Amino acid sequence: MIYKVGVNGVTGRMGVEVAALLGQGLQLASNYLELADAVANSDKVTSVEGVTVRTWKSPSREPVHVWVDFSRPAATMSMLESIDTPVVICTTGFSESELAKIENYSKRHAVLLAANTSPGMSVVRRFLAQALPPTDWGFSAHVEDIHHRHKRDAPSGSAKEIVRLLEKAGYEGVQVHAIRTGGVVGEHEVRLISDNEEISIVHRAFDRRVFAKGSLLGAVKLLSVGKSGLYSWDELFSDAFEGRSE
Amino acid sequence: MIYKVGVNGVTGRMGVEVAALLGQGLQLASNYLELADAVANSDKVTSVEGVTVRTWKSPSREPVHVWVDFSRPAATMSMLESIDTPVVICTTGFSESELAKIENYSKRHAVLLAANTSPGMSVVRRFLAQALPPTDWGFSAHVEDIHHRHKRDAPSGSAKEIVRLLEKAGYEGVQVHAIRTGGVVGEHEVRLISDNEEISIVHRAFDRRVFAKGSLLGAVKLLSVGKSGLYSWDELFSDAFEGRSE
Amino acid sequence: MIYKVGVNGVTGRMGVEVAALLGQGLQLASNYLELADAVANSDKVTSVEGVTVRTWKSPSREPVHVWVDFSRPAATMSMLESIDTPVVICTTGFSESELAKIENYSKRHAVLLAANTSPGMSVVRRFLAQALPPTDWGFSAHVEDIHHRHKRDAPSGSAKEIVRLLEKAGYEGVQVHAIRTGGVVGEHEVRLISDNEEISIVHRAFDRRVFAKGSLLGAVKLLSVGKSGLYSWDELFSDAFEGRSE
Amino acid sequence: MIYKVGVNGVTGRMGVEVAALLGQGLQLASNYLELADAVANSDKVTSVEGVTVRTWKSPSREPVHVWVDFSRPAATMSMLESIDTPVVICTTGFSESELAKIENYSKRHAVLLAANTSPGMSVVRRFLAQALPPTDWGFSAHVEDIHHRHKRDAPSGSAKEIVRLLEKAGYEGVQVHAIRTGGVVGEHEVRLISDNEEISIVHRAFDRRVFAKGSLLGAVKLLSVGKSGLYSWDELFSDAFEGRSE
Repeated sequence: MIYKVGVNGVTGRMGVEVAALLGQGLQLASNYLELADAVANSDKVTSVEGVTVRTWKSPSREPVHVWVDFSRPAATMSMLESIDTPVVICTTGFSESELAKIENYSKRHAVLLAANTSPGMSVVRRFLAQALPPTDWGFSAHVEDIHHRHKRDAPSGSAKEIVRLLEKAGYEGVQVHAIRTGGVVGEHEVRLISDNEEISIVHRAFDRRVFAKGSLLGAVKLLSVGKSGLYSWDELFSDAFEGRSE
Repeated sequence: MIYKVGVNGVTGRMGVEVAALLGQGLQLASNYLELADAVANSDKVTSVEGVTVRTWKSPSREPVHVWVDFSRPAATMSMLESIDTPVVICTTGFSESELAKIENYSKRHAVLLAANTSPGMSVVRRFLAQALPPTDWGFSAHVEDIHHRHKRDAPSGSAKEIVRLLEKAGYEGVQVHAIRTGGVVGEHEVRLISDNEEISIVHRAFDRRVFAKGSLLGAVKLLSVGKSGLYSWDELFSDAFEGRSE
Repeated sequence: MIYKVGVNGVTGRMGVEVAALLGQGLQLASNYLELADAVANSDKVTSVEGVTVRTWKSPSREPVHVWVDFSRPAATMSMLESIDTPVVICTTGFSESELAKIENYSKRHAVLLAANTSPGMSVVRRFLAQALPPTDWGFSAHVEDIHHRHKRDAPSGSAKEIVRLLEKAGYEGVQVHAIRTGGVVGEHEVRLISDNEEISIVHRAFDRRVFAKGSLLGAVKLLSVGKSGLYSWDELFSDAFEGRSE
Repeated sequence: MIYKVGVNGVTGRMGVEVAALLGQGLQLASNYLELADAVANSDKVTSVEGVTVRTWKSPSREPVHVWVDFSRPAATMSMLESIDTPVVICTTGFSESELAKIENYSKRHAVLLAANTSPGMSVVRRFLAQALPPTDWGFSAHVEDIHHRHKRDAPSGSAKEIVRLLEKAGYEGVQVHAIRTGGVVGEHEVRLISDNEEISIVHRAFDRRVFAKGSLLGAVKLLSVGKSGLYSWDELFSDAFEGRSE
């Protein structure tokens, strides 16, 4: 399939990455994606990857199958008033009323709301939800979260989610060891240690383009879902992991 | 619960480890296990952890709830003619007709047939069966298998099983890099690498007692199953992983 | 100190990275570095980080303390005819006669000739030269080299250098396991395994800017050397590691 | 060479390991070692690996070339009054006056005084003394120390020594992350992270026999030194690392 993708927040740090991936056309999971529309509030940048950057007030360039949004809450709201397609929302910091508007929009269209679109981190979450050893096998859990020195929050949102999933499986008192230093894009490790053996799972992002790539994987998946609804990443892709066990 | 455990092949390399774990009584997964009977063909060792080592021809010492077998096929067959309880069979190398006898025994009792009883390796297999990224996410898979220099087979049985599960999920052409050196008890690593990120899962055994511990976890689990049948480790414990996802 | 740096090959893949580091001024090892001159054969790019890109035939912009060269042999030769300062040469593929010209130039100025300017890889080489266990301690050595799928040579130049240093210390028959996949910038691992323990050293580059940063560390070091000569990275920095042992 | 080794504290946790290594004769670093004398205060064990266990008051079994001591300070002092050979002292907790007696003994014989005889940990210390990146290269250092849940001190003595060596090289404010859990024999990791790359060195002991093996390597080395003196492990083996750099 050929899909036309629109990008909201195209001049932002992540929007630029999404546009760059789409720039020359992107072959992704058996589909072909093209950059069809680029929106931002910026006056400084007039075009991205050969596509004119417009605001929501300007007329759109061409029809779009799916939107990807890496912007700010107000810009996301403007988007929802202007579009009529599935949308991947990676913006964060919504108020209750803004979330209500997103939920309302999701009654007509498929919406993926995902603060973290790293496909690999979803594999780690899946491991934690499906494959953790039962607590009576005698393992203790230890989490490490290493990021560059510019990252302000520690532990990271992903580390907190890891702890939540460990607690859900019955692991108690799990500590996160967070390091903020140098240029580490993002590394999370979960070590499970017993008297006789150890299992560790490590996720390492090479660059932040991983989130752009993930948002586009999400966009393609939304288009295949074929019905409205508000999805988390893990809900959206749950069927992709099924039907494999013996 | 208090369970009396019998060990067949108690003077062998692994049988000794099982007996040592049971020697002073073992608290395991909310149960209390004791060494109740010890069987071997050896004349050299007369007692293990305070329990007389007998042969199957000698009268049994005391009633046993569950048997653990680390012996040879002929000794396993002798055992099946003498006992009337659930049994964990960790012996390998059975002929077709011997397997048929085991299957026949399993019509009356719960039987765990497991060449590898490392609880942690079952977590790795569970990861591979349940949480591998879909192949269209762009990951390639790489397997490493490191063992001590006395191990003759390379790749290991576990490494082959890892490859089988990767292939089942659609990963093709997976290579195993096997190293045999020094005193490494056993290490397996699966690395999944894409353009933007990496997930790796590593299992490391500290000592071979891990297999003894696992066989006893299996014994306790058999006793809770409450019905006859022939189980693999993964089948026996499948319910222990369920009911956790959101 | 404030140093003015010139970049030869400034429109190339690595030249761009060096210019980007210097663009806003760079604080490096107690010095302040500025981009002072930018040279390339390209007509397409007219300025880099606010500095006009010129050819060696155009008049220079301003005096330069040290040059960094990431270009091609012919462009390096043009440079040597035009400059009169220390120079870091990271270009590769020189002929014998070109190397002779570089050596001749080094009679008047300090020259660092370095195919790989990753500071971290020099730490690994230093480890291999200074701290490897004596061979009669019973360790075997194993090397892994993982790079992105676009890298054509396998093993890498660094992996070959690692093997050379292991052989120099008496380790024989060392195998390199090379993987080319996904977007791994560059990872090298040396594992030393005996019957009772293991030491592993891993180097991981986050992005190729590491080579740009290293070339500038080399430039600063050349300026402090204060005498002419042709240096490898390890020779140039050998004194930086000394005088620490007890 | 064939060396006769005596073991003081032969019924203790580590003494047993030394005796087990020597039991059938041990080929080590081109030498052949045999267990020649076994001393302990215990009445319970009468022989170890076929050698009678005696006390210092009983007559010695046969001449010994070198002694290995894993005991308690008082037993070490008894030993020094009874022997007249080089000695490896791995006992800890000496008072000032006891240390003075050891030093006095070392005027007549070569003495290795080493709390930790893991050969691999000495490689890590050598790395820290010889190969750490200069501080102005922009690396920060992070230390991890993982041991079994029975280990009481945290950080470990080795982790403290690692920090001391990092500080000696100018690294400030280094944190140790210590984990005490399960059956981890001993793992130490030093990670050096900058904006663009990372170097990590990991040491992992497989079992405590590593310390027994190391004490015997020390014994052999003492015999080759050929002069009296009190040595640390790193002093004793410093020449084994030299003469390799280019």
